Amino acid sequence: MTKLLPVGATIGILGGGQLGRMLSVAAARLGLKTHIFEPGANAPAGDVAHLVTTASYDDAAALTAFGKTVDIITYEFENIPTRALDLLETLAPIHPGRQALATSQDRLVEKTFLQELGLQTAPFADIANAGDLEAALGTIGTPAILKTRRFGYDGKGQARIMAAGDADQALADMAGAPAILEGFVNFTHEVSVIGARNPSGDVACYDPGENVHEAGILRTTTVPAKLTPSQRTDAVLIAARILNALDYVGVMGVELFVTPQGLIVNEVAPRVHNSGHWTQNGCAICQFEQHIRAVAGWPLGAGTRHSDVVMENLIGDDVDRVPELSNSDAAIHLYGKAEVRAGRKMGHVNRVVGPAS
Amino acid sequence: MTKLLPVGATIGILGGGQLGRMLSVAAARLGLKTHIFEPGANAPAGDVAHLVTTASYDDAAALTAFGKTVDIITYEFENIPTRALDLLETLAPIHPGRQALATSQDRLVEKTFLQELGLQTAPFADIANAGDLEAALGTIGTPAILKTRRFGYDGKGQARIMAAGDADQALADMAGAPAILEGFVNFTHEVSVIGARNPSGDVACYDPGENVHEAGILRTTTVPAKLTPSQRTDAVLIAARILNALDYVGVMGVELFVTPQGLIVNEVAPRVHNSGHWTQNGCAICQFEQHIRAVAGWPLGAGTRHSDVVMENLIGDDVDRVPELSNSDAAIHLYGKAEVRAGRKMGHVNRVVGPAS
Repeated sequence: MTKLLPVGATIGILGGGQLGRMLSVAAARLGLKTHIFEPGANAPAGDVAHLVTTASYDDAAALTAFGKTVDIITYEFENIPTRALDLLETLAPIHPGRQALATSQDRLVEKTFLQELGLQTAPFADIANAGDLEAALGTIGTPAILKTRRFGYDGKGQARIMAAGDADQALADMAGAPAILEGFVNFTHEVSVIGARNPSGDVACYDPGENVHEAGILRTTTVPAKLTPSQRTDAVLIAARILNALDYVGVMGVELFVTPQGLIVNEVAPRVHNSGHWTQNGCAICQFEQHIRAVAGWPLGAGTRHSDVVMENLIGDDVDRVPELSNSDAAIHLYGKAEVRAGRKMGHVNRVVGPAS
Repeated sequence: MTKLLPVGATIGILGGGQLGRMLSVAAARLGLKTHIFEPGANAPAGDVAHLVTTASYDDAAALTAFGKTVDIITYEFENIPTRALDLLETLAPIHPGRQALATSQDRLVEKTFLQELGLQTAPFADIANAGDLEAALGTIGTPAILKTRRFGYDGKGQARIMAAGDADQALADMAGAPAILEGFVNFTHEVSVIGARNPSGDVACYDPGENVHEAGILRTTTVPAKLTPSQRTDAVLIAARILNALDYVGVMGVELFVTPQGLIVNEVAPRVHNSGHWTQNGCAICQFEQHIRAVAGWPLGAGTRHSDVVMENLIGDDVDRVPELSNSDAAIHLYGKAEVRAGRKMGHVNRVVGPAS
């Protein structure tokens, strides 16, 4: 039997946003405590965590004090400075591991890794300067999208190149950061698989969800996704293959484009994922608990879905719809963020639309 | 439209046990903070609350400081000292209100209230002394059960009287506390209704669950309960009638005995209830969120059940079964209690057994 992290043990979580908040709640459900490390004040996760450290990722003393209070460390976002990780890993095991982080922190490394696994990705090229970009546009063509290799999320650090004339401005938008050019993929829709793997090597994946984005931000996820049975199997096998190749421990989100030529991997997130929020109301064991189970060495839940769900993000002013939404059967999940800003994820709702179909 | 308690508002919760813990998590889901008031150290609710005050209910300064930080006050147990309530209600509204508390804090008052509503209860008599007890046993007969009027739970403060010869010992067990004699009810099984009412007078009830007790402690709740359609309707109407009569705000647990002569009200708990824990995995909106919605002036969830569930309490050493349980599809809910004691509720598991039947 797997040795379970015992009741009362503490999981350190890097990042105190909504994902850290929902991870903390899931940990509490299993009798575990959490300690949040977050540079920003009034972290959403702070309201439901046992301890919160408010400090910068270059504050070695704070990192050390944090590391000494926790039994294991996990994170809610992938852009954690390497030096902080170097220090923390001397104090407690970090899950998911460094290889997964290093892979997903850099779009070029990630795409290369996926290709080497034999998986399909968008065509891409490493862009260090205007010459690289011109050459790559010659091969990949337009439209294409120029992205910083590191630290991008929710459409930030990206510039579309609709025609060669857009190249200079796009490169200027990168502000000198190493970049990658990606060709557009002609896809019918995007799906994602939320998969988990624990230290024993067990893998469990949830049914794929179908994602709709607006302005680069996830708007809705619908489960089940429109997929043929063989596409569904392919999607899950792709996720399992990535999990195994990285000797991964935790939950991972794998975004896939559905095309007539098969499934193309868009992005891998080494953490719980917005497109997995539906599991909170569609499964007995949600992605947050699944992640905690994995990093704490517990057996994984099977990922069984009991209901069909539509998840909708509440972005910026959408949160003003809460009075109306609270009058429906939607399950509301708010993140406790005091300040509403355009494009800011304030919460989400899950609508259970029927038994699992 | 109802004025909702806004995101970032604070709900004060009297009592920091597992019910306070699960209420705190539900409040967080709606973007609300909680402040726990609890005399005991290391309160289970403390791990997931924004603030915790560790102080006695006769510490007026602590109560005052607590009351000033909160927008409304609720509680996880009904045996709150009256003087603490007198002080707190000058600082913030208390839901459910004083009438509900006064009614449920005293078994004699409660049974009298239920009878005056025209509901069936076990036969009962007020017992102040041996003479009262002798007379009551003459009317009610044996077997019967002598209970303290106040501060009893989970079988504490109770003595069975199987024959008249047990009367003296039973009275001695009450240690001079005012008592009530209750006749035994010949019931086939016990069910409970978890109902909710908000300040607008809206009422929503969950489907009745069927309860099995062992040694006076709830062991399992199974939903749906074995009830005919008309019994199910009766059960819900009884709960709704009690909620209305008390001008109640919050969630209430109503335990009912099923007998060939109809449903007999056993007990009313003015709070979230152990027999409603199944709602966490059987409904989009669980009893804890429903209670928070009610006391915060939000619209109630409909109480719709998407799945059939069996809830099992983990009592004392049962918690040692967690490694095995974690290897199944059961949803595990642990309370983070460090010390295992016989009869102590350590957690519960919900097994989703299929779509709502």
